[in-house]
Amino acid sequence: MKQNDELYQSIKWKKDGLFIIDQTKLPAEESRIELEDAEQVWEAIRQLKVRGAPAIGIAGAYGFYLGIRDSKAKTHLQFMEKCRGLADYLNSSRPTAVNLSWALKVLVERVAKQEGLSISDLKKLILQTAITIHDEDRELCKNIGMNGVEIVPDSARILTHCNTGGLATGQYGTAFSVIFHAHQQGKVKQVWVDETRPLLQGARLTTWELQKASIPHSLIVDSAAGFLMSQGKVDMVITGADRITKNGDTANKIGTYMLSVLAKEHGIPFYVAAPYSTLDMELDNGSQIEIELRDEDEVTAFNHQKTTPEGTRAYNPAFDITPHQNISAIITEKGIIYPEFEKKILEHFAMTTE
Amino acid sequence: MKQNDELYQSIKWKKDGLFIIDQTKLPAEESRIELEDAEQVWEAIRQLKVRGAPAIGIAGAYGFYLGIRDSKAKTHLQFMEKCRGLADYLNSSRPTAVNLSWALKVLVERVAKQEGLSISDLKKLILQTAITIHDEDRELCKNIGMNGVEIVPDSARILTHCNTGGLATGQYGTAFSVIFHAHQQGKVKQVWVDETRPLLQGARLTTWELQKASIPHSLIVDSAAGFLMSQGKVDMVITGADRITKNGDTANKIGTYMLSVLAKEHGIPFYVAAPYSTLDMELDNGSQIEIELRDEDEVTAFNHQKTTPEGTRAYNPAFDITPHQNISAIITEKGIIYPEFEKKILEHFAMTTE
Repeated sequence: MKQNDELYQSIKWKKDGLFIIDQTKLPAEESRIELEDAEQVWEAIRQLKVRGAPAIGIAGAYGFYLGIRDSKAKTHLQFMEKCRGLADYLNSSRPTAVNLSWALKVLVERVAKQEGLSISDLKKLILQTAITIHDEDRELCKNIGMNGVEIVPDSARILTHCNTGGLATGQYGTAFSVIFHAHQQGKVKQVWVDETRPLLQGARLTTWELQKASIPHSLIVDSAAGFLMSQGKVDMVITGADRITKNGDTANKIGTYMLSVLAKEHGIPFYVAAPYSTLDMELDNGSQIEIELRDEDEVTAFNHQKTTPEGTRAYNPAFDITPHQNISAIITEKGIIYPEFEKKILEHFAMTTE
Repeated sequence: MKQNDELYQSIKWKKDGLFIIDQTKLPAEESRIELEDAEQVWEAIRQLKVRGAPAIGIAGAYGFYLGIRDSKAKTHLQFMEKCRGLADYLNSSRPTAVNLSWALKVLVERVAKQEGLSISDLKKLILQTAITIHDEDRELCKNIGMNGVEIVPDSARILTHCNTGGLATGQYGTAFSVIFHAHQQGKVKQVWVDETRPLLQGARLTTWELQKASIPHSLIVDSAAGFLMSQGKVDMVITGADRITKNGDTANKIGTYMLSVLAKEHGIPFYVAAPYSTLDMELDNGSQIEIELRDEDEVTAFNHQKTTPEGTRAYNPAFDITPHQNISAIITEKGIIYPEFEKKILEHFAMTTE
């Protein structure tokens, strides 16, 4: 489907060069910049020019190639040493980004196993692996979207939260991918975009992505979601996920839990869209997820401009936990998981490890 | 109770002069300015230096006196003409503020009935009436607070929304008055302040009022309220009201409805504090209340700085409706009304009109 492939990609590899959309400039300015070496990739990740866990992993993988392609190493041992140092360096740009450390680990391990290859061939292998990581993420996001189309009713008015689109992933996104593919099939009448305080990812990024894709939308303050539902203006809610535990409990951007309660109150289905890699099989339920508390000044100031009296304290949890009971289904690249999540998830993992 | 009387008042009448706290300067600067004539009062109301329906009514009443005190009228007829013109003029500063037109009407009618008084005595009557309007609002707000103390549990962690304090009224406020008086009796452990998007009345004004009153508090984004409740950190919710219909349905700042649903989900009591004058006996239920849609740029910009892509639309309802079923009690200056609201409210009105 040609139209699909033309949807913007935040990261592009073209003729031996890495090009990204500088997300710090959005939405005021859409500027694509070239990152020419590992140091520039490190800076771009650190400064949030690239953000969103999958996108960071992809940029890091290309950054790894950019950092190694001019290596003068003569032996596999010398090359490996360089690779390990480079991975540590890139990883330090956002130490908590799981996808970044995962991508770098894949690259280092692949090189380590190929003692027989020439240095030149190892470099080619690294680039090919980075491209594969990128392609797989695009494919995965596309599949999440295609799978999700069936849960979207005709003339759907969809409410979503935070940013879950192509900016944060290889392409298409997660919840955004479902909206995008449903829109391609003519099923989307309107998207309600929560502005998503405190950092306004909805207002700044999701509106930009919807505008790009010509999907009709309106921005609302987060606290208007309940009123819209009570007025019969919302047919379904869909969000992404940062982590999903074995029983289906889902950690996602602060405000997601509130939406799930409101959806339940109004009999509106509430969906989560995420790749299988978001499932954390080490955790039984949401109470085991630690909630990151972020800087108070994200709430007490706007663009470094104080909005509160001096000395005002704020409590700023970055995520909340939506209990599995409030989730109608989880949309993944491998299909839709309906309750009972725990049983279905365990069955799937048993199947894939056989 | 001396300490009470020292709580800031946004409006003060001192030695023939009107002094207000300029709310447009809050919270960065606390500046009290003198308004010397009706034109300055008109400007102050127009520019939101005075805001909050009761506060506007009080300022308008004093402005009426300032506009008439130097009148050279010789006859009652001439004086009345001047009064009517002045009332129309002041009323045009915020035509939809019910309390303003109410106060001006009271003043004009009082003068109209006193044909026998000298012009000088009529002027004194006007000032005395303005002071009475002011005093009655302070007294009423104080009584709301005193009445509400009994619904506040010991060591209460109270969540509130928008601004309901002394800035918006003669003194003490409505929901804020309950919090204030409960705190004076040592019952308040913590107040959670919703920032209240889009105009941030919670972040800008309620934090300022709580700081003034030395009541411990933390600011949160509106969408964190549900998470706090799920963590067991909230004992009660209390908000003000813009209008209450005969059956108890309540119109208030956008986000109030969401809080009522979340409180119900978590078994947390949800209270509304408001004077009896907020009861609109002409409306049977909330579906009859028209919801004001406000400018989109309140959501798409911050301090005139665009946060969204050009052309982004926003849907910006100023209020929402909380159904009476979600309200545990309504705190008024005459006492606490528990469900069934309709029966209790009708009984009361029958009683007071006998």
